[in-house]
Amino acid sequence: VTAPAITVTFLGTGSGVPSLHRNLACVALQRQGELFLFDCGEAAQIQFRRAGLGFAPLVGIAVSHMHGDHVTGLLGLLMSLQMADREEVLELYGPPGLADYVEQSRQALRTHFAYSIALQEQGCAAVLRETASYRLLAAPLDHRVFCLGFRMEEFPRPGRFDVAVARARGVPPGPLFGQLQRGEAVTLANGEVVRPDDVLGPLRPGAVIAYCTDTRPSAASIELARGADLLIHEGTFDAGMAHEARRKGHSTVADAARIARDAGARQLVITHISPRYQDVGPLLAQARAIFPETRIARDLMSVEVHHRESAEG
Amino acid sequence: VTAPAITVTFLGTGSGVPSLHRNLACVALQRQGELFLFDCGEAAQIQFRRAGLGFAPLVGIAVSHMHGDHVTGLLGLLMSLQMADREEVLELYGPPGLADYVEQSRQALRTHFAYSIALQEQGCAAVLRETASYRLLAAPLDHRVFCLGFRMEEFPRPGRFDVAVARARGVPPGPLFGQLQRGEAVTLANGEVVRPDDVLGPLRPGAVIAYCTDTRPSAASIELARGADLLIHEGTFDAGMAHEARRKGHSTVADAARIARDAGARQLVITHISPRYQDVGPLLAQARAIFPETRIARDLMSVEVHHRESAEG
Repeated sequence: VTAPAITVTFLGTGSGVPSLHRNLACVALQRQGELFLFDCGEAAQIQFRRAGLGFAPLVGIAVSHMHGDHVTGLLGLLMSLQMADREEVLELYGPPGLADYVEQSRQALRTHFAYSIALQEQGCAAVLRETASYRLLAAPLDHRVFCLGFRMEEFPRPGRFDVAVARARGVPPGPLFGQLQRGEAVTLANGEVVRPDDVLGPLRPGAVIAYCTDTRPSAASIELARGADLLIHEGTFDAGMAHEARRKGHSTVADAARIARDAGARQLVITHISPRYQDVGPLLAQARAIFPETRIARDLMSVEVHHRESAEG
Repeated sequence: VTAPAITVTFLGTGSGVPSLHRNLACVALQRQGELFLFDCGEAAQIQFRRAGLGFAPLVGIAVSHMHGDHVTGLLGLLMSLQMADREEVLELYGPPGLADYVEQSRQALRTHFAYSIALQEQGCAAVLRETASYRLLAAPLDHRVFCLGFRMEEFPRPGRFDVAVARARGVPPGPLFGQLQRGEAVTLANGEVVRPDDVLGPLRPGAVIAYCTDTRPSAASIELARGADLLIHEGTFDAGMAHEARRKGHSTVADAARIARDAGARQLVITHISPRYQDVGPLLAQARAIFPETRIARDLMSVEVHHRESAEG
C-alpha cells in the first residue's frame, strides 16, 4: 500500500449557520508535508485541532468569498498562529476585500502578527502558487458575490523506470540507474548514449483536487474539476430545490453530480449542506443516480487520493 | 425547592487560544425569561446550541474588551440571529471601538441585519440597562487595553407577607392580602388603615452577579463584586505567576480569591484559564486556601443562584 498523494479532511461541512453536527466551511488539504486550508469558517481552528492537524506545515489559506460562514474563523486562526510564535510566511489567497477585512479586524482587535502574511487578492482566474511539482489555481465561480473556486494540480510525474529495458540496453545497475530516473542521459562504457525516454514509461498523471463552493452550477466549476481525482463541490439543497438554489446562488446535490460527471472527475464529495437536512440519505441517492462515485461530507471525514499509474488507472 | 433566581452557564472558559476542552470567553446569564451573554469568543454560538439555549430570550450581549478571544464569535452570532429571522432589538454593550468593529465586519462580510442593534459604547462606569427589578452596570477594569467589568444587580425584593400579623391586625383573607403584598395600603371595614409596612417583613436581597475579565486585581473588581452572590473572575495564571500575570494585564487564581474575599462575595467561579493548565486541581487548592467557596469553571458548567431570605441568609 502506497502513501496517499493527497489527504483531504473536511473540518466544517455546513452552510450559513453551524449546527451541532456541521461546523462552517473549511477543508484541509495535506500534500507531502504541506498543508492548505480552503475557507475558514467560525471554529475552523478548533476543528483543526480536533482533526489532529498541526500548525507547522500550514502553508496557505484560500478563501473562496467574503461571506461570514467562510471567513469568520480566519482572524482567530491568524491570532493563534501568532500565539504559537509562527515565524514562517503564511500565504493568504482570496477575493478582493480580503486584505481590508484582515487589516481592519486586526486593528479593531488590537492584535499584531509578527510573521509575514503574503496576501493575494484575485479578481479573475490566476495561478496562486507554483512549485516544481504542482500549482494551485483559482477561477471565478457564479455566486451572489464574487467567489473563487480552486484547483490543486500536480504536474504529470515521470514514467516508471523500466529495469528490464535498461539492462537490455546495457546499463549496469548502480548510479547510472539513478541518473536516468532523474531525467539525465548517460553514456555507457562502449560510448553508447542512453536517454531517459529510452527507459522510462509514459508520463504518469499527478493528483488533482478541485474545490467549488459557493456557486450555481457553472462552466467554471467544470473547468476547475476537469479530470480531477476528487471534486469537492457544494450541494446546499436537495434536487427538488433547484429554483431556490439558483436564486440564492447555490447548487443542488444533483447539480454537483452533473458537474462531476461532465468534468470527468473520478469522485465527488458534496459539502456545504444546509442545516435543514438531518438525514442526508436522500441527498446521496439523488446525486448517485447521476454520478455514482459520490459521498456527502461529514465533519472530520478524511479522503485519501492516491496516484494513478496511467490516465486510465 | 424554589426556581433559581439566575442561572449562569459557562460557554467558553479558556483564554487566548481555544483548546479541545476550553472554548473562548462566553458566559450566559438567564433571569426570568431573559438571556444575556458576557463576551462572545469564537464558537460562542456553537456552545450556545450545545448548552440547549435558544435565541428568542436573548436580550443583550456585553463585550468586555476588544481582544479577539472575547469577540471573534460576535459576528457569526449576529448573522445567525439574522438567519433565524430575528425581529426584536438586540442590545450590545461594550468598549469604544465595538461599533466600528461590528460595522466594518458587517460591510466586509456583505451582510445585513434586518433587526435593530442598540449598541452602547461605554468609556467609563455606566448603567447599561435598568428595569423595575434589576440593573446592569459596567465599570472599567485594569487590563492592557480598555476593559469593562459587569454587574447584574437585582433591586431588593419586598419583605415576606406575614399572614399571622395581617390576621391579628384584622385583615380578612382575600383580595386585601393581595393589595398589601403589592405594596398598597388597605382600609378595613372598621375604618382602620393597614399599611404594607405593617404586614411585610424587611426587604429581602436581590440576586447579584459580577463578571470581571480580563483584569489585573483591581479595586473596580471589588466594587463590582461587593456582596455578590456569585463573582465570575478571571484567573489566567497559577498563584506562582503573579509577575507574569501583572505584566500581561491578568490575575492569578489567588488574586481572584482575594477579590472575592475582600468584596464579601458568596461564591467565586474562576474562568479564563490559560491553555497551559491541563489539571486545575492545584489552581483550585490555591484559590480555596484564600476563599473556600471557589470553583474553577468548565465549559458548559451551570451555576444556579437562589434568592436569599435575608442579608445574612
